[in-house]
Amino acid sequence: MYELGVVYRNIKRADRETADGLAKFGTSTVHEAMGRVGLMKPYMRPIYPGAQVSGTAVTVLLQPGDNWMLHVVAEQVQPGDIVVAACTTDNTDGFFGDLIATSFKARGARALVIDAGVRDVKTLTEMGFPVWSRAISSKGTVKATLGSVNIPVVCAGALVHPGDVIVADDDGVVCVPAGMAKKVLEAAAAREANEGEKRARLASGVLGLDMYKMREPLEKAGLRYID
Amino acid sequence: MYELGVVYRNIKRADRETADGLAKFGTSTVHEAMGRVGLMKPYMRPIYPGAQVSGTAVTVLLQPGDNWMLHVVAEQVQPGDIVVAACTTDNTDGFFGDLIATSFKARGARALVIDAGVRDVKTLTEMGFPVWSRAISSKGTVKATLGSVNIPVVCAGALVHPGDVIVADDDGVVCVPAGMAKKVLEAAAAREANEGEKRARLASGVLGLDMYKMREPLEKAGLRYID
Amino acid sequence: MYELGVVYRNIKRADRETADGLAKFGTSTVHEAMGRVGLMKPYMRPIYPGAQVSGTAVTVLLQPGDNWMLHVVAEQVQPGDIVVAACTTDNTDGFFGDLIATSFKARGARALVIDAGVRDVKTLTEMGFPVWSRAISSKGTVKATLGSVNIPVVCAGALVHPGDVIVADDDGVVCVPAGMAKKVLEAAAAREANEGEKRARLASGVLGLDMYKMREPLEKAGLRYID
Amino acid sequence: MYELGVVYRNIKRADRETADGLAKFGTSTVHEAMGRVGLMKPYMRPIYPGAQVSGTAVTVLLQPGDNWMLHVVAEQVQPGDIVVAACTTDNTDGFFGDLIATSFKARGARALVIDAGVRDVKTLTEMGFPVWSRAISSKGTVKATLGSVNIPVVCAGALVHPGDVIVADDDGVVCVPAGMAKKVLEAAAAREANEGEKRARLASGVLGLDMYKMREPLEKAGLRYID
Amino acid sequence: MYELGVVYRNIKRADRETADGLAKFGTSTVHEAMGRVGLMKPYMRPIYPGAQVSGTAVTVLLQPGDNWMLHVVAEQVQPGDIVVAACTTDNTDGFFGDLIATSFKARGARALVIDAGVRDVKTLTEMGFPVWSRAISSKGTVKATLGSVNIPVVCAGALVHPGDVIVADDDGVVCVPAGMAKKVLEAAAAREANEGEKRARLASGVLGLDMYKMREPLEKAGLRYID
Amino acid sequence: MYELGVVYRNIKRADRETADGLAKFGTSTVHEAMGRVGLMKPYMRPIYPGAQVSGTAVTVLLQPGDNWMLHVVAEQVQPGDIVVAACTTDNTDGFFGDLIATSFKARGARALVIDAGVRDVKTLTEMGFPVWSRAISSKGTVKATLGSVNIPVVCAGALVHPGDVIVADDDGVVCVPAGMAKKVLEAAAAREANEGEKRARLASGVLGLDMYKMREPLEKAGLRYID
Repeated sequence: MYELGVVYRNIKRADRETADGLAKFGTSTVHEAMGRVGLMKPYMRPIYPGAQVSGTAVTVLLQPGDNWMLHVVAEQVQPGDIVVAACTTDNTDGFFGDLIATSFKARGARALVIDAGVRDVKTLTEMGFPVWSRAISSKGTVKATLGSVNIPVVCAGALVHPGDVIVADDDGVVCVPAGMAKKVLEAAAAREANEGEKRARLASGVLGLDMYKMREPLEKAGLRYID
Repeated sequence: MYELGVVYRNIKRADRETADGLAKFGTSTVHEAMGRVGLMKPYMRPIYPGAQVSGTAVTVLLQPGDNWMLHVVAEQVQPGDIVVAACTTDNTDGFFGDLIATSFKARGARALVIDAGVRDVKTLTEMGFPVWSRAISSKGTVKATLGSVNIPVVCAGALVHPGDVIVADDDGVVCVPAGMAKKVLEAAAAREANEGEKRARLASGVLGLDMYKMREPLEKAGLRYID
Repeated sequence: MYELGVVYRNIKRADRETADGLAKFGTSTVHEAMGRVGLMKPYMRPIYPGAQVSGTAVTVLLQPGDNWMLHVVAEQVQPGDIVVAACTTDNTDGFFGDLIATSFKARGARALVIDAGVRDVKTLTEMGFPVWSRAISSKGTVKATLGSVNIPVVCAGALVHPGDVIVADDDGVVCVPAGMAKKVLEAAAAREANEGEKRARLASGVLGLDMYKMREPLEKAGLRYID
Repeated sequence: MYELGVVYRNIKRADRETADGLAKFGTSTVHEAMGRVGLMKPYMRPIYPGAQVSGTAVTVLLQPGDNWMLHVVAEQVQPGDIVVAACTTDNTDGFFGDLIATSFKARGARALVIDAGVRDVKTLTEMGFPVWSRAISSKGTVKATLGSVNIPVVCAGALVHPGDVIVADDDGVVCVPAGMAKKVLEAAAAREANEGEKRARLASGVLGLDMYKMREPLEKAGLRYID
Repeated sequence: MYELGVVYRNIKRADRETADGLAKFGTSTVHEAMGRVGLMKPYMRPIYPGAQVSGTAVTVLLQPGDNWMLHVVAEQVQPGDIVVAACTTDNTDGFFGDLIATSFKARGARALVIDAGVRDVKTLTEMGFPVWSRAISSKGTVKATLGSVNIPVVCAGALVHPGDVIVADDDGVVCVPAGMAKKVLEAAAAREANEGEKRARLASGVLGLDMYKMREPLEKAGLRYID
Repeated sequence: MYELGVVYRNIKRADRETADGLAKFGTSTVHEAMGRVGLMKPYMRPIYPGAQVSGTAVTVLLQPGDNWMLHVVAEQVQPGDIVVAACTTDNTDGFFGDLIATSFKARGARALVIDAGVRDVKTLTEMGFPVWSRAISSKGTVKATLGSVNIPVVCAGALVHPGDVIVADDDGVVCVPAGMAKKVLEAAAAREANEGEKRARLASGVLGLDMYKMREPLEKAGLRYID
């Protein structure tokens, strides 16, 4: 976060199987499994609905209106990575379009998460390259000022270290620290195992009030029913 | 609006047939039929396009980051209701997901209108359970503090009493007070009856300037044409 | 921008072929071809994805909550035009719906670009009449106060003269001054000619770093690689 | 909220002494004394610091960009009133300036609370006429469309009935329903009586943890101290 | 607006006496005198209260996060000028601080109007150099990419040509085209002449309803009084 | 960032003299001295102008609408500390008022930096206890859910570790990592040493263009002057 003009080439990625395994649980379950932390702000939206991915983070810090470092980060991408791009200030310019996406894809990147703008969204959608961004904008960028690659970044309010696991879907984006990923995967699986039965009971008309045994704590908290 | 920790069990719902009949006119026509009032703010957006519903409001006042009362309100839902959730402060957390939706649906709820965030939107879309919300967010909530059920609430700028009729579609959400619903239904039908003919005339090239006889008032207001 | 209550009937439209020819390049390429200027703010979003249009601007300046001038501008529309509507203040009301759209379409308008709200979006989508707007809202408007037609306007941060070329797609909206349109068309075509080959090279794994010969300037700027 | 074009001349104001007595407690204490409800959104800011007032609400519903009804409401003002102005849609125009303020003041109004814009703030400051607003803007308004006077309004998210008590200070604006005002006054006084002693203890170094006996509930909630 | 990398050295400034004379009327009166147009958006706020200035515009178009052109524009400043800085995209970085202010002041600039951020506001306040900006931010900028000087710019929604008159005060910022400045000055003076008498009458208790003869048009519009 | 319900009692604070010494340089100089990083977002504003402080961070992570942990953090405050409060979601409630301020002050805290709301601002101003916050709001909070104390937090977009140095003034808030503080202090002093001379030269009419030798790089970048 504090070094500009550097590219870390060797990062320790989270275990591949774990990183891959988190996608299917989705961000809401993963976020709960982490203890309700790790989310990016909800202004981060997918450019098309339905994508659900996980992967290991390679990070890049951009300067406003300058996408030079996206070319630098491309070289650091390995198959299974998700590029996480932060910016030193709030900016909605279109840093990323179909050409860089082609390059990222060729390197094996699964997605881009960018706290800034993106363009060529129709082509990106056709390519099936998912992006989560704060904005969609045609605004072009220059290539003049250095940022950094693979330093820790704050992206949309979440701290991301290179190698962390990123999970993204229609609900948003969550970052799972590499060191917690295995535990979170297990916790997510445990939560999910539970959900099918809960869903069936709720569908049959059982109330959450009863299923979760909330009536007593609600009464203790002072809830009054008035006819 | 001024009582916390209470649940009103007996509310007077608007006439069912009237409440059901308003859906087909959509929010824009209903809002006009009411005399251009009753709308929620335009930041309330549907989680998927195309849903168009009406129903009777059961209301719930939530505390920020706390979805306890959504479980309490579930028990008060009757078939044909739409749950209207306000929050004591601006909050985008994901108060509502597929499990509570399953419960709401089992109780006969048609939709949720929530001035806060919602999650599991992919599953909600698959379930066909429509939600209008201010945000989509994975952010989880706690169950610790009481709000109220079936008190009047201000939701996204609109006052909603329990039993009022809610109409929601791609254009937004409107609240029709129970006591006005019948009149509004008639006025909406009258407006719509008119529209087919108007549309045909406009499609044939007749100008609104002539159809609505605006030329004279525009001239009086001082409009000048310059060649 | 400084005259209220006037309608200019004779405007000089950009060359038709040029105006029509810009659509296929899309806003991002056109904006780059202009030298990275001319864009509207990214809050301008299409009401449905996939539309990509260009046409000549007829402009209208609206008063907040008042859509009277949309009826006035309809008469000035010619086939191939795009209506560009600005407002004297930020306003999200639903100035435009399916009836006026029917009229605009009958006159040959291709689209509406409005720095305000729009309604009846489901019907507009079915009609295939594309709109770029700052908001979607059922909120109705009155017909009481004059604006102007075919004066220069600032719409979503971009200056638009009547007769300029508007290009709009999923990435946003760009305004090409009539006098620059031909040159911009040529520059856009030249850019695009280039892109296919670039895309192929990037897809084959060549890095932008090498293709654009960035390694040397990056090194000069001080970029350090750390293993 | 649902009637446009009406002026209610006879409203039942909250008891004068009570209404006047609430000012000195300020909005934060009053809001707590009400049970943590009744606040307007925090975007409502005073045009100058230091004013602290209370009074009885006369309400007015405005149309966007149209201040006609502010002249209508002036006639309904009585000494000790605070004018509460809502708008049918979000709007930041400068509806109110020093001339209307002179009129309001001559009628005995103590302040204006307006969910829209205000202008002439330097003169208003010199006059000592406090205003809480969502914006400051020179933007002028027209006089063309009716709203209403002394109907219930939703102003900055708070429901205000004519005759309710408004309390406003540097922290914001709160609305106390007329029927609750006396009770709220007593509760506010009780809270305040307490505060001096609490402040003294905290100033002497006693911790809130001990003064409010929080250590046990924190431990129960699972708080862990790590050295 | 469409040329980057150019500096126009010879601009035609509005008549000095007229430009100077507009300050005392303030933005609200000047904006009304222009026919209710010409304002910048209300997010433009002064960094300290009380400043009220007018002067001739020298314009500069900045790139996001890059203040290089502020140094270029300094050379073009003449006594009595106000620098108007637009940016090619929304950006809140601190482009301007006390050093450049010292330079601007030495050249005779009266103020800066910048649709971006500013810093060193404490020192600027001590220097008495007024700035209207969209943000206050310490965020530093680079010097790498060209914009332009003395081209027409859109600043906070208002079109500004070099040489136009800028008026700024606590209510906001208005741009008076050079060609209209004399007429606007006269109209502003005429408005103001009127205001003293109006104020006196309103202060004596006369209602705007009567002074402006609004009762009849209100009745015609359908206003009903209910006792 | 990933642990809820914990309080770290032993943190390593930055060197006292260094931490104290940074205040006088202000945020803009310190941010530049760090290499243009470390700033909080510009929505963080002081509740009164003129305060300029530095100190060592004790951090606290809050839950929305819940200020319980502010009482917990009070115990961990030592003289010379600044409390940095982040929230798990965007929230503008009034978490902090004059009572907790009294307690913080008694413990030796110099300021509060809170990415949420604050109240009692008039009293806080009288007490001379400075706060930087995202909002001012009377909205009360509950004490029901655990956060953490002295874990790393992201506050208004900046990563803050307990013990880091916080510098805050009218321009905003910057966080200097403890390990960099000494170097940053030296760099800031070096920058400042320079500024006096620069200011004198600019005040005498020397242009930045000449003083910073920008004419050649501008020409190389292609800047054209047009007479």
